[in-house]
Amino acid sequence: MDTGGQGWMDGLSGDPEIAGLFSGTALFASFARFEQALIKGLAQAKLIGPDDAAGLIDQIAGFEPDRAAIDGALLRDGVPAPDYVRQLRALVTGPGSELVHHGATSQDLVDTATIEALGRTGAILSKRLDALLTRLADLENRDGGNALEAITRMQPALGFKASDRLAAWSQPLEALRARLTKLREQTRILQFGGAVGGLRALGDNAAIIAETLGRELDLRWPGHSWHAARGPMLAHANYLSELTGALGKIGQDVALMALRGDRDIRLSGGGGSSAMPHKQNPVAAERLVALARLNATLVAGMHQAQIHEMERSGAAWMLEWMILPKMCEAAGAALATASALMGCVDRIGEPGGDGR
Amino acid sequence: MDTGGQGWMDGLSGDPEIAGLFSGTALFASFARFEQALIKGLAQAKLIGPDDAAGLIDQIAGFEPDRAAIDGALLRDGVPAPDYVRQLRALVTGPGSELVHHGATSQDLVDTATIEALGRTGAILSKRLDALLTRLADLENRDGGNALEAITRMQPALGFKASDRLAAWSQPLEALRARLTKLREQTRILQFGGAVGGLRALGDNAAIIAETLGRELDLRWPGHSWHAARGPMLAHANYLSELTGALGKIGQDVALMALRGDRDIRLSGGGGSSAMPHKQNPVAAERLVALARLNATLVAGMHQAQIHEMERSGAAWMLEWMILPKMCEAAGAALATASALMGCVDRIGEPGGDGR
Amino acid sequence: MDTGGQGWMDGLSGDPEIAGLFSGTALFASFARFEQALIKGLAQAKLIGPDDAAGLIDQIAGFEPDRAAIDGALLRDGVPAPDYVRQLRALVTGPGSELVHHGATSQDLVDTATIEALGRTGAILSKRLDALLTRLADLENRDGGNALEAITRMQPALGFKASDRLAAWSQPLEALRARLTKLREQTRILQFGGAVGGLRALGDNAAIIAETLGRELDLRWPGHSWHAARGPMLAHANYLSELTGALGKIGQDVALMALRGDRDIRLSGGGGSSAMPHKQNPVAAERLVALARLNATLVAGMHQAQIHEMERSGAAWMLEWMILPKMCEAAGAALATASALMGCVDRIGEPGGDGR
Amino acid sequence: MDTGGQGWMDGLSGDPEIAGLFSGTALFASFARFEQALIKGLAQAKLIGPDDAAGLIDQIAGFEPDRAAIDGALLRDGVPAPDYVRQLRALVTGPGSELVHHGATSQDLVDTATIEALGRTGAILSKRLDALLTRLADLENRDGGNALEAITRMQPALGFKASDRLAAWSQPLEALRARLTKLREQTRILQFGGAVGGLRALGDNAAIIAETLGRELDLRWPGHSWHAARGPMLAHANYLSELTGALGKIGQDVALMALRGDRDIRLSGGGGSSAMPHKQNPVAAERLVALARLNATLVAGMHQAQIHEMERSGAAWMLEWMILPKMCEAAGAALATASALMGCVDRIGEPGGDGR
Repeated sequence: MDTGGQGWMDGLSGDPEIAGLFSGTALFASFARFEQALIKGLAQAKLIGPDDAAGLIDQIAGFEPDRAAIDGALLRDGVPAPDYVRQLRALVTGPGSELVHHGATSQDLVDTATIEALGRTGAILSKRLDALLTRLADLENRDGGNALEAITRMQPALGFKASDRLAAWSQPLEALRARLTKLREQTRILQFGGAVGGLRALGDNAAIIAETLGRELDLRWPGHSWHAARGPMLAHANYLSELTGALGKIGQDVALMALRGDRDIRLSGGGGSSAMPHKQNPVAAERLVALARLNATLVAGMHQAQIHEMERSGAAWMLEWMILPKMCEAAGAALATASALMGCVDRIGEPGGDGR
Repeated sequence: MDTGGQGWMDGLSGDPEIAGLFSGTALFASFARFEQALIKGLAQAKLIGPDDAAGLIDQIAGFEPDRAAIDGALLRDGVPAPDYVRQLRALVTGPGSELVHHGATSQDLVDTATIEALGRTGAILSKRLDALLTRLADLENRDGGNALEAITRMQPALGFKASDRLAAWSQPLEALRARLTKLREQTRILQFGGAVGGLRALGDNAAIIAETLGRELDLRWPGHSWHAARGPMLAHANYLSELTGALGKIGQDVALMALRGDRDIRLSGGGGSSAMPHKQNPVAAERLVALARLNATLVAGMHQAQIHEMERSGAAWMLEWMILPKMCEAAGAALATASALMGCVDRIGEPGGDGR
Repeated sequence: MDTGGQGWMDGLSGDPEIAGLFSGTALFASFARFEQALIKGLAQAKLIGPDDAAGLIDQIAGFEPDRAAIDGALLRDGVPAPDYVRQLRALVTGPGSELVHHGATSQDLVDTATIEALGRTGAILSKRLDALLTRLADLENRDGGNALEAITRMQPALGFKASDRLAAWSQPLEALRARLTKLREQTRILQFGGAVGGLRALGDNAAIIAETLGRELDLRWPGHSWHAARGPMLAHANYLSELTGALGKIGQDVALMALRGDRDIRLSGGGGSSAMPHKQNPVAAERLVALARLNATLVAGMHQAQIHEMERSGAAWMLEWMILPKMCEAAGAALATASALMGCVDRIGEPGGDGR
Repeated sequence: MDTGGQGWMDGLSGDPEIAGLFSGTALFASFARFEQALIKGLAQAKLIGPDDAAGLIDQIAGFEPDRAAIDGALLRDGVPAPDYVRQLRALVTGPGSELVHHGATSQDLVDTATIEALGRTGAILSKRLDALLTRLADLENRDGGNALEAITRMQPALGFKASDRLAAWSQPLEALRARLTKLREQTRILQFGGAVGGLRALGDNAAIIAETLGRELDLRWPGHSWHAARGPMLAHANYLSELTGALGKIGQDVALMALRGDRDIRLSGGGGSSAMPHKQNPVAAERLVALARLNATLVAGMHQAQIHEMERSGAAWMLEWMILPKMCEAAGAALATASALMGCVDRIGEPGGDGR
């Protein structure tokens, strides 16, 4: 519970599966893929012979970075890539070894690794969205015809059916499900610009190398670097907060329904109280609200980080790193929580009503 | 400067043209269009005869709401629509007059009016984006070959060309220009749900009436209301902040270039100082940064407003109204400021360099 | 409703009385007071003779700035002070007239005017807090013994008395009432630093002039300028959001009580619905929540504006101006709304219970 | 680097020493102290005999909670206290053992533990502030007389001395140093209210027990619980962001000085680049800006969490836990970074100038 500085509350906002995607292990694996793909690109441009390239790629595959050294260098360099590259260059030998990382820069490694982690996050969110939508469909099938009171502006308005409220929960999630696919397509973009963004060090070979890199990494090469234009990162942040927002609305509704009592919802598995054993608190519903408000808070920092001065802003870039993984974890945790919550709904509304 | 409670600083973050789109005049014009289109829908559903409908539409066209009364009612009702509808109903006479606003609710009027105002805002932003991109293209033509130093992490990195930095400014704006069209398509959506979202009062006529309404207002009918799913509003908020963010990055760059001096940029028309007449401050550049940070701040409130409880949340809905128009104005002001700033650039970079 | 670009929703978040404190009229009155006090300071330092000083002060008293010219200059200079000073200098004549604004800078004028406006805002908030606390005490006297159900984590917990919940509303407001006095004392600080903060132009006379200025303006001279240290502004922003937060909590409680119905609260004067005339919406309660979330959003921008680079940051300073007056208005509107809401409470809880 | 879901970037925003204060170990130690002090209070009220109390306190001292069980229960209960209390109650035996946790509730344990963690954080920040102020004083002694150009609105203004800029850095930190003591005094407050805040279960013994509890824990008993009034938590959040803001301003200044070059500042130990070995990036300065913007982002969530509905809001409370420890870590990291940065300043300004 407190290894490595973790707080006791991290279990509430964290998501271990998604956290793993932003771990050092995942990062260095991305770095290695990038450097291998770059060697292939350099080979495609005939700057390295095919056999030499294969040898270098093998050496990179076997490279185990000294993480303690990188951790130390991180505070000095503000980014883990320079020491990784230094170590890698010190390791590889043979013809072409002087071309490891040739034409690339730290930002190419880190942004590409982030894009990969975001893509993998999306795959996890996608599966969880599917599972949640299935649960909601099950509820609709079971309880959709039950009677509920619609509530507008915190006042009972008119009677309607449970299916009406369930539709208001499902429709935004279905739209978000569809958008996730588009988001992934739009943001699977290679970051590759070299020292100051123009790939000058590669001269006329820049295009062929960039295209090879993108193909190897299954990322689109947009024709230019986007070091200081953070659209792809921001698109994810907006999406993540929109997802937790849609789930937070469900959480808020369930909490209000639980407050109104059995005529609205019956929940099992609620949270216990240390002072009042008779209570069953709608803890998962509250947690959805908290996670939504957390991401709605954090997203502002990603928007602030757009002011990415000149050709590379360490300040704005670090701010992204401090925020984006937390938003991914919150979104993952919210989806898992929402599914669990829906699994605890024993009944929505009251049977036998005509839903009017 | 201080009519109607305006602050002296409103000139810096406001945009009078866009403010007009969110004025009472614009709002009631939208309400009238909605109520007229609804009459057409009811006529299409044969609930009102064609001649009666024409007569009602004429009466609505001539309706001048008593605004002072609505202003007073706004604080009581929390929304201007109920008193508007009360006044309208008191005015219209003749067959079918009892069907004015039939099946609709305040939220249908207000959300649709907001969508219309956002659509018109988009049209203004679009023109201004075109104008700005033209200015950037002119700069590129004139100064693109000049030499500049690339700056990464607040340190001179390598030489490159003015066109490299200009491309980093233009590319995101071009992408935002393209996205504006898509945004408009996706969010030109009719809000129509009646009291609690299900159009129950209209029975089997709901679809034909909704489709007629949408056609008349040139808005897409998505097949259901979206009272509590604020995606379209949020999409605009995200876009607006992404736009001001891209402009804020330009502003930050120009301010830094102005700090570095003539080798980077020559500006005319800078701001004066009361204490140091020799100074030419890059005021427009600073203003772009301020507007970007303002919208990056405000966007968080729109994300918070996603937690729109039950079938209609007065709290979340009011929060949107307090924020979204300000974001639109800030975006409009930022585009105007950016164009003005680019018009004051006498030179970027230094001629004669090879840009390396 | 739409004069001067005001939006139709401004009635919900605005406060005309407080808005007046941030108007051009108020600003230029502050500027004039500052310039007059500065003349007195210069006279105290014997740089101007007493009769000449009196004559200059009279001339400043009669000065009516050309506001249209200042509005125009605002966009160029990014601050209204330089053109104001230019106009004033063009107007005044006689011995010592060349010393108008001597040693001061735009920031001295604007920050001091802001401090004055914040002080006056505090005086209004103070009165409104008193009025609200009186209303809460009246409710306590009338209904304090009534029975209520305590609600923890959105579940009925145990019975208690209306006075318990009322105490949870009043205690934070009483603490905020006490803090307002302290806040005012701590932040009634003169801003005076001249061109770059050190009052160098005044040489050995700096202290005597600064002390005179402070005495004349009833502001404390802290011994140095604080151009780039925005603590006093931030202290107000934090306070304003804490105040609206305490009121938002009351609003959220009242909205939930209204949802639970008559056993919790009876409200009169609720908001109407255009579709459901039977409803009485707790609009004022919702508005308190919206205003709290608005200020909780805006306060982040004030914290961002702390990064006030070098000796004066136009970007950070403008961001303050765009935000702080809105926060003041929201706080004023929230206090007025809370008092009105408490006046509409016909009963809290149920009489005759033992409150357990 | 990636144990327990930690991200690779956590090294940049985290602070292991402060993280430990919010760990499970620290939490359960606080819980134990609370439960022990409560036993003393119950003994003081003669509800438990002195020897029985001593025996219970010993048993609590020896209690090792099953953390895996609590981790599991955390997601169900939304708070670690109920399962902790359940385990503790299962363990203790003997007379009075049925009174363990008597009259208290989960929130009393958790809020008090948080107050303790915040107090310890303050002690660490205090030491680091002293160290930083010493470094700044050393710089002042060494370089204070050097010549610098003052920069206002991103333009060179006038010459001044290095001591002028250093004073603008130190003064806010000195004020924050003084405020830290006050903050600690004001917020070392016992949270104790029982199930719904009124300590009803303790009847007439409430006051004596509360006072004993406070004395034992070295916390002030304010005379009532403050379950739903989050002022003490918010005061810390505001302070933490104000501290990182003051450091972020220094970071921004140093980054700009590094951009302007040797005439402004000479830094050693700057960050390396993977593509440009000649560069020395002002990484620590950038990091200060990032941490300031992170806390300025997060503080908004704490302000949102003020809307703590009814007698206990799980949603608002969880939001605090997700945010406040991160803000503490960011503040700790920023202070350490600032001290390190100041230690790398080889020279500010240029000797031999007259500083004008």
